[in-house]
Amino acid sequence: MPDTGKGLENIVVAETEICEINGQLGELLYRGYHIQDLAKNIGFEETAHLLWQGDLPTREQLHDLNCQLMADRVVNGELDGLLRNLASVTQPIDAIRTLVSALAAYDPHLEDNSHEANMRKSARILALTPTLLAAFKRHQDGLPPVRPRESGSLANSFLHMLTGSEPDPFVAHTLDVALVLHAEHGMNASTFAGRVTCATLSDIYAGVVSAMGALKGPLHGGANAVVLQMLREIGSPENAPKYIAQVLDGSLTVPGMAPKRVPGFGHRVYRAMDPRATVLREMSHTLAKKAGETIWIDTSEAVVKACQDSGMYAKGIYPNVDFFSASCYFTMGIPESLFTSVFAMSRIAGWTAHMMEQHADNRLIRPRADYVGLRGRTVLPFEER
Amino acid sequence: MPDTGKGLENIVVAETEICEINGQLGELLYRGYHIQDLAKNIGFEETAHLLWQGDLPTREQLHDLNCQLMADRVVNGELDGLLRNLASVTQPIDAIRTLVSALAAYDPHLEDNSHEANMRKSARILALTPTLLAAFKRHQDGLPPVRPRESGSLANSFLHMLTGSEPDPFVAHTLDVALVLHAEHGMNASTFAGRVTCATLSDIYAGVVSAMGALKGPLHGGANAVVLQMLREIGSPENAPKYIAQVLDGSLTVPGMAPKRVPGFGHRVYRAMDPRATVLREMSHTLAKKAGETIWIDTSEAVVKACQDSGMYAKGIYPNVDFFSASCYFTMGIPESLFTSVFAMSRIAGWTAHMMEQHADNRLIRPRADYVGLRGRTVLPFEER
Repeated sequence: MPDTGKGLENIVVAETEICEINGQLGELLYRGYHIQDLAKNIGFEETAHLLWQGDLPTREQLHDLNCQLMADRVVNGELDGLLRNLASVTQPIDAIRTLVSALAAYDPHLEDNSHEANMRKSARILALTPTLLAAFKRHQDGLPPVRPRESGSLANSFLHMLTGSEPDPFVAHTLDVALVLHAEHGMNASTFAGRVTCATLSDIYAGVVSAMGALKGPLHGGANAVVLQMLREIGSPENAPKYIAQVLDGSLTVPGMAPKRVPGFGHRVYRAMDPRATVLREMSHTLAKKAGETIWIDTSEAVVKACQDSGMYAKGIYPNVDFFSASCYFTMGIPESLFTSVFAMSRIAGWTAHMMEQHADNRLIRPRADYVGLRGRTVLPFEER
Repeated sequence: MPDTGKGLENIVVAETEICEINGQLGELLYRGYHIQDLAKNIGFEETAHLLWQGDLPTREQLHDLNCQLMADRVVNGELDGLLRNLASVTQPIDAIRTLVSALAAYDPHLEDNSHEANMRKSARILALTPTLLAAFKRHQDGLPPVRPRESGSLANSFLHMLTGSEPDPFVAHTLDVALVLHAEHGMNASTFAGRVTCATLSDIYAGVVSAMGALKGPLHGGANAVVLQMLREIGSPENAPKYIAQVLDGSLTVPGMAPKRVPGFGHRVYRAMDPRATVLREMSHTLAKKAGETIWIDTSEAVVKACQDSGMYAKGIYPNVDFFSASCYFTMGIPESLFTSVFAMSRIAGWTAHMMEQHADNRLIRPRADYVGLRGRTVLPFEER
């Protein structure tokens, strides 16, 4: 093909001020701040403000944003029936895509693409998705939904709505940090799908719906669930070396993966350790110790050692963010079926920041396709086909 | 920016065997057949088979496809409540996006991306969308929905469901031809959004939902409604020269358009007359004569003449498919609020053909963004922000 390859791998599609990734050095920065600095020092709501507005909030700005997000946590009664119907038949990520799509119907300023209207929409989707997701899971489990909290962080409120009980403060803090880590990652496939959608001057809801549709694909947001399935199959640390050796020599294939591929390893951008993986690895160890159940993180570490010993690091293939989020989420008590949706909950912050950037200086995104098919055909009657 | 501009204008993103567009010559071909040949000789269902399978159907293949599409026309009862709720608050294109998203929930083979499963899903979405759209509009108008027909073309069944009465055969034929003309158009923004979504190995429903989100944008699928609004403002042919002169000198701006732009004129790809516009123009005249109401097509022609006289043709700016579809759809009795959704109904055939092509030889579509923002920031306490 002329000009490019079909994955657009080295093609620059936009200028951005939101996120910088240095794959060689293993660096990730939101708006010029290193991800480690953010994970250590600010919460998810502050991160959303940073991504949306370009700067960290003042105390007053954060207060205002928190008030808005808390008010937006409550579900429109009209969505209750839909929630109930979907809970009996579908997966969480498909359900929240449908619910966010339906939500657009109730926005009286749907077609207003000004920054102010886009900010309101972004906050609404960010605040409401955890409520929808928790209510969906409760319906699936035959339990009544729990109302969102009127104070505290989104992470705390989500865990409370999910379990119906007061979350352990360290678990809530860990989820908050995980949401910071997953909030943004440049021009990935879901963000790109959202930008392509919004570049027709379509609205933010339509963009988030497109992004959620892309995120659910096994090549994108579904990877940490595949990691957990693998950890389950391995069962305990001492089985890891043999299992990984079999995967790498092709005598065993991890379900949901291509042959000889270990889920949670390698990334199209990073050629060093993913900085988010480093943070999640540490949190996963601390969580496991506190919970008194270290089997998942210990098995994860045994997999890492086996992969490293096999020479994968030397080839630039390191654990990525999905690898350690599997053990981390699982130890937090987040059901495996929600992994992709919790990723989406967080990434809404980054997606909507990109959609606002797209709207602020827009051009329709319309590439070309290279025609390689048949030519010169004419319609013949049925008898001659 | 290095490598490309932000609209990906000259970037080739895929090889395709579906559609060829020659903008300089004003040619459009589906699978090697000229659009004029198809519009004259085959119906929409045959076109869908051609786009999906690569060849025109035999009589038996067409019979099988028709049987499948007719069986798929009937709405799942679970969607009734959602249809009713959405009808009270939202626009048709947002409603069908939400309904197709919800539909995914009821597909037991949702995660099967084989060609056979993708064919079944594509047929189901194609067959059911007209039913959903007509029922939505009937609910909006306070009328009971009409059941889909168990025989006849999709175009005939749609008009019957919309109006509750037997469609005029020529009107049904005209809609059928319009559906053939709008079924496919290469790597446009909505098709591309769908391919980006499916390139994560997400499912066909998710792809169609992304495409519908992109189509609704004013820069893409909303153009023919803007044309109709302009025709209404102009009111009659004799007002056209003055109106167009005012638009072109900037003293008047068409609502929903950038200054000095005439809706329905110009295209990123065509530098000659859009071949679909030629077919629609002729149909629009015939329809108007039969209906005894030529005001819309006469006003359209007066606009074309004024634009041509002003030198737009010489600059390569010709009427596009949206320009003549406005008068054509309106004279057929299709409400203006449904224009974009009828476009979507037709384009589902092309979208799903592209998604199947993507799945058949997939690579994740992940371009890069060029970071131009701040660097070297560190998180400061609130007092120092």
